[in-house]
Amino acid sequence: MKKYKYSFFNDYSEGAHPLILQALSETNLIQATGYGLDSYSASAKEKILQQLRTDSDIFFVSGGTQANLICLSSMLRPFEAVICASSGHIAVHEAGAIEATGHKVITVPSKNGKLSKDLIAEVVLTHQDEHMVKPKAVFISNSTEVGTHYKLQEIEELSDYCKINNLYLYLDGARLASGLATDDSDLKLSNIATLTDIFYIGGTKNGALLGEAIVINNPHLKSEFFRVIKQRGGLLAKGKILGIQFDVLFTNNLYFELGKKANLHAKYLTTGLKDLGVSFLTDSNTNQIFPILSNTIIESLQKDYGFYIWEKVDMDTSAIRLVTSWATTDESVKMFLDDLKRLVN
Amino acid sequence: MKKYKYSFFNDYSEGAHPLILQALSETNLIQATGYGLDSYSASAKEKILQQLRTDSDIFFVSGGTQANLICLSSMLRPFEAVICASSGHIAVHEAGAIEATGHKVITVPSKNGKLSKDLIAEVVLTHQDEHMVKPKAVFISNSTEVGTHYKLQEIEELSDYCKINNLYLYLDGARLASGLATDDSDLKLSNIATLTDIFYIGGTKNGALLGEAIVINNPHLKSEFFRVIKQRGGLLAKGKILGIQFDVLFTNNLYFELGKKANLHAKYLTTGLKDLGVSFLTDSNTNQIFPILSNTIIESLQKDYGFYIWEKVDMDTSAIRLVTSWATTDESVKMFLDDLKRLVN
Amino acid sequence: MKKYKYSFFNDYSEGAHPLILQALSETNLIQATGYGLDSYSASAKEKILQQLRTDSDIFFVSGGTQANLICLSSMLRPFEAVICASSGHIAVHEAGAIEATGHKVITVPSKNGKLSKDLIAEVVLTHQDEHMVKPKAVFISNSTEVGTHYKLQEIEELSDYCKINNLYLYLDGARLASGLATDDSDLKLSNIATLTDIFYIGGTKNGALLGEAIVINNPHLKSEFFRVIKQRGGLLAKGKILGIQFDVLFTNNLYFELGKKANLHAKYLTTGLKDLGVSFLTDSNTNQIFPILSNTIIESLQKDYGFYIWEKVDMDTSAIRLVTSWATTDESVKMFLDDLKRLVN
Amino acid sequence: MKKYKYSFFNDYSEGAHPLILQALSETNLIQATGYGLDSYSASAKEKILQQLRTDSDIFFVSGGTQANLICLSSMLRPFEAVICASSGHIAVHEAGAIEATGHKVITVPSKNGKLSKDLIAEVVLTHQDEHMVKPKAVFISNSTEVGTHYKLQEIEELSDYCKINNLYLYLDGARLASGLATDDSDLKLSNIATLTDIFYIGGTKNGALLGEAIVINNPHLKSEFFRVIKQRGGLLAKGKILGIQFDVLFTNNLYFELGKKANLHAKYLTTGLKDLGVSFLTDSNTNQIFPILSNTIIESLQKDYGFYIWEKVDMDTSAIRLVTSWATTDESVKMFLDDLKRLVN
Repeated sequence: MKKYKYSFFNDYSEGAHPLILQALSETNLIQATGYGLDSYSASAKEKILQQLRTDSDIFFVSGGTQANLICLSSMLRPFEAVICASSGHIAVHEAGAIEATGHKVITVPSKNGKLSKDLIAEVVLTHQDEHMVKPKAVFISNSTEVGTHYKLQEIEELSDYCKINNLYLYLDGARLASGLATDDSDLKLSNIATLTDIFYIGGTKNGALLGEAIVINNPHLKSEFFRVIKQRGGLLAKGKILGIQFDVLFTNNLYFELGKKANLHAKYLTTGLKDLGVSFLTDSNTNQIFPILSNTIIESLQKDYGFYIWEKVDMDTSAIRLVTSWATTDESVKMFLDDLKRLVN
Repeated sequence: MKKYKYSFFNDYSEGAHPLILQALSETNLIQATGYGLDSYSASAKEKILQQLRTDSDIFFVSGGTQANLICLSSMLRPFEAVICASSGHIAVHEAGAIEATGHKVITVPSKNGKLSKDLIAEVVLTHQDEHMVKPKAVFISNSTEVGTHYKLQEIEELSDYCKINNLYLYLDGARLASGLATDDSDLKLSNIATLTDIFYIGGTKNGALLGEAIVINNPHLKSEFFRVIKQRGGLLAKGKILGIQFDVLFTNNLYFELGKKANLHAKYLTTGLKDLGVSFLTDSNTNQIFPILSNTIIESLQKDYGFYIWEKVDMDTSAIRLVTSWATTDESVKMFLDDLKRLVN
Repeated sequence: MKKYKYSFFNDYSEGAHPLILQALSETNLIQATGYGLDSYSASAKEKILQQLRTDSDIFFVSGGTQANLICLSSMLRPFEAVICASSGHIAVHEAGAIEATGHKVITVPSKNGKLSKDLIAEVVLTHQDEHMVKPKAVFISNSTEVGTHYKLQEIEELSDYCKINNLYLYLDGARLASGLATDDSDLKLSNIATLTDIFYIGGTKNGALLGEAIVINNPHLKSEFFRVIKQRGGLLAKGKILGIQFDVLFTNNLYFELGKKANLHAKYLTTGLKDLGVSFLTDSNTNQIFPILSNTIIESLQKDYGFYIWEKVDMDTSAIRLVTSWATTDESVKMFLDDLKRLVN
Repeated sequence: MKKYKYSFFNDYSEGAHPLILQALSETNLIQATGYGLDSYSASAKEKILQQLRTDSDIFFVSGGTQANLICLSSMLRPFEAVICASSGHIAVHEAGAIEATGHKVITVPSKNGKLSKDLIAEVVLTHQDEHMVKPKAVFISNSTEVGTHYKLQEIEELSDYCKINNLYLYLDGARLASGLATDDSDLKLSNIATLTDIFYIGGTKNGALLGEAIVINNPHLKSEFFRVIKQRGGLLAKGKILGIQFDVLFTNNLYFELGKKANLHAKYLTTGLKDLGVSFLTDSNTNQIFPILSNTIIESLQKDYGFYIWEKVDMDTSAIRLVTSWATTDESVKMFLDDLKRLVN
């Protein structure tokens, strides 16, 4: 394990926001009912529901891949498939978790990581033949795997199309805080609760030790969800440790404040990079940015900073991924930009 | 959520041992590599391996059902099945998690929750027909779901039989600390590492917030285990929080001290109950005991204490399950016995 | 492959009823639409529906295990399970086919191979806990794997219980002809169509080269069944060869005539055996009988006749299984009884 | 079901080659052991093995999708995936059969329906990350879904690459007869047996009523294959009806003669079409051809002839698929060409 000046590898290099650790300490020895049936989880759900303004069901699980496989396998009959962008997490980086539950993931090429009505319609059109799988769910992520985010109208259009065409709309919110906390976002949690069938609110990448809140909006998808989670190994015995964390995150707007802070540091980076004449692979206002640098510079940067090389752009340049989080410091951003400046000049 | 004088429902009503919370706090803002590839996890593995004295592979996951489904599905071809006692956790209380990965669980009636060479041999004998599933793995738990535990010789016999008959031996160690910390146990972690193919060391029920350590002893079962865990949704982004916890548990013998403490409080209860003339469903030296009480007394006790009614014994009496843990206090045990004394007299 | 005087191993040792081969020949070079969308299949379905008097959907597939796994996996959500007698084909002799689709098979001990309301109720009662699978389907077979058969009232009671308790009732009709053609049967195809959610009419064991007719009575289970069959590898390209066979079987009552003939030869055997003082493991009026003979006699019989030893009864005797079919001849039965008589005396 | 002058929809519109029906009739009432353990199946296997010159294991199953899902699920661990051309049958037209067994199908765009070393290498290279599925099998078909076929050297290169990179090579031989019987094919059954790990010899599309012969060449993949087939519902009770058919097909070179005949009629069509100035979507010497015609002409042809419209080429023209078989007559080809000539002029 290499020691870096700073790691921009991802938004889960640190532990939890201090308020969360404090709450875990304060409640530590108080006995609670297991499996998420405790009062902390109940309180957390209530606070989330106040923002959703729906009568959704909420369940807390450990991680994002787990949430995705639990939710999607729960809504699909065996021959039904889920549509996602070719960069979608379930298509690329979950080691076939969805297929392991028996379902095909149909991918659609998408430069900006987003799906549109037209992209989905094309898939539906080409899967009429009864010898093919039947598309039944649509997977989107916000923010997406390439740092972009959806506007309200885009989700509304997707939702309308899905309703008319009898498709479920599922939103992976691993980085929902960052997606909703962008300067130009007009989306709210309450919109998502109204427009999707199931989505999850990511905790791991936004200040929790671990934990994602699955939100089931479609009443037809609520039944027996406890058993669904249990069967997939997603039920935590000490469920209260998830409830406590979300209770803290949804107190005093902390969840969105942390998202905002992550975005802010990404913006510092973006501005600094643009000042140096750097261009970007995608247009991101969220906490993931993809600057394009020469391979020589990348190699030098890698000595001191942690980050992934995302993709080769041409013979001499590549896009790298820099991820900020609620824990990123001004100093680390400044240090990175200063070091880069030296390399560029 | 009812308020009890004390809950004996299970060994996961409280949070973590204070030393664990302290370690999580101290390391909280130090950046670490994700997915368990951090230095804390490395240190924890090293400490565990020192006790195992094998070159096993170790992986940390969130919970017991998750560990069971990951390990068993990883070692079986589609038509292969796992044998377990009829009280086995995978057969009863995992909502079909093993079957959801495609495998039959073959159950064998067993009064004391344990398997023996003869019980397994009978299953092997009756599954020769190629129209049947092929038994390939044997699932045991220590301590068992009914509070009993294995002696070294018993595991040796099972291991010998399995090796000769080309079966994998898998041990569910959700309550391994309690099982190994009994007065009369002659089993050590190092024995289990030598005698089983895979087992897991339970953290959730012995002082961790969450976490189980999967130990792969059989070299043939090691390959690509990272992908196996990822696919089943068991890979934690912030893997360090599992590593840190096991690092603490395996420092200064804490893991076994906690097991001993849980057993001690169960013994207090057992002694007190025997003094009142109470008999037991199974012969337990671990942290789960199953006293048989009259239904009237049970009803009265339930007003103040939390516990499960395990099974009906006859028209008038039932066995209840009382579970102690590292967090159980002398006071709560005394209070329970005093209250019971009043009810009995 | 040993040469026997006669094989009573099963009811699929011969090919097809001659009328079926004739129909296959006559239609052989006439082009037909694939996948069961041909006119022969349409005609066969119409003839079956005339007997059912329902608006059921009908699909033809190749074999019984295929029919079982297709139908059951189609009606169950991932955490749902199917209840069957411990002798049920899906529990014993399908190599874990149901589990391979992700579902637990819950077995209930049953001496006579049949299920009753009470046996099912017990399972439902003990599976209320949300940590367990949820029983959702009931599997029965008629005739059963041990030669018994259901009366109308028995199926009515099962059906009532299932409806009230929100369970699907599924009937495996591999040997339905024999079951319905018994002297004392008051069940008709039309009853089964009304009382079950899905069942299948077995062709393979009653005169067809291969083929089972899946009948879906519950309208909620009809949707997308073509895709269901395709996904499980059950869709035959030349679907017409199944349609043609069922068209012949359901012309002039041939299906039931063949069942009657099979039963008749079993009755000849039974009567002859009883005359020799032989007792039976189960009380069968169908084409499978289970006489109990001394191991010495069994060994002698095996030199000339093919049959399975079903189970050990005591140290000296075992039950064997003798199966007759539409193709069994009077001569073979007489020969067997004569040979046995010589051995007994 | 529309009545056509002739249907070129596919190569399974008719029944069986007359010699097959004759053999089924002649052996009809002779008792045989079930499940493919009969003497006819043994004889068929021997005849096939004489051509393979390997000690492969052979099993007969009902259809192609069944063969594909049985073989691929048998060779893959849960996180392993299969690579195929984007036109591959398992990727498009099996309703997610492979995914239903838990495995991802990774598709590679390929104009001519074939895979090459380079196409596979690219997939392997981009799947090194342990968060992704691991490519482990390569699926090819010969002839392919778009009428092309492999030369010996192409398969040798694939085989070499697969061996070096620890991948299994699997060949779908639904139309193997046609593929091998082309004028320019230098491939033999014996080459395929040496160069692939498993393949199947298609019967359904080349003169059988139904049936495919799975050939397992890699000794590591042979174990417990009976159970594998049984579990997936692929085991036919009257296995002899498959054995008898392959025994006939592999007597006096009938299998290849039928393939040759199918190809010959496709060539008649191709020549006739080329004479009319028609161009083709792919370069096919097999029994599937893809002429490009104006939509107006296609519409007219559809009144009298059955065929699929394969894909839109531009606004005014589309490629159609014409399939010939062993049963196609000179008259039907001539009639089609004459009718087309009238439409063109």
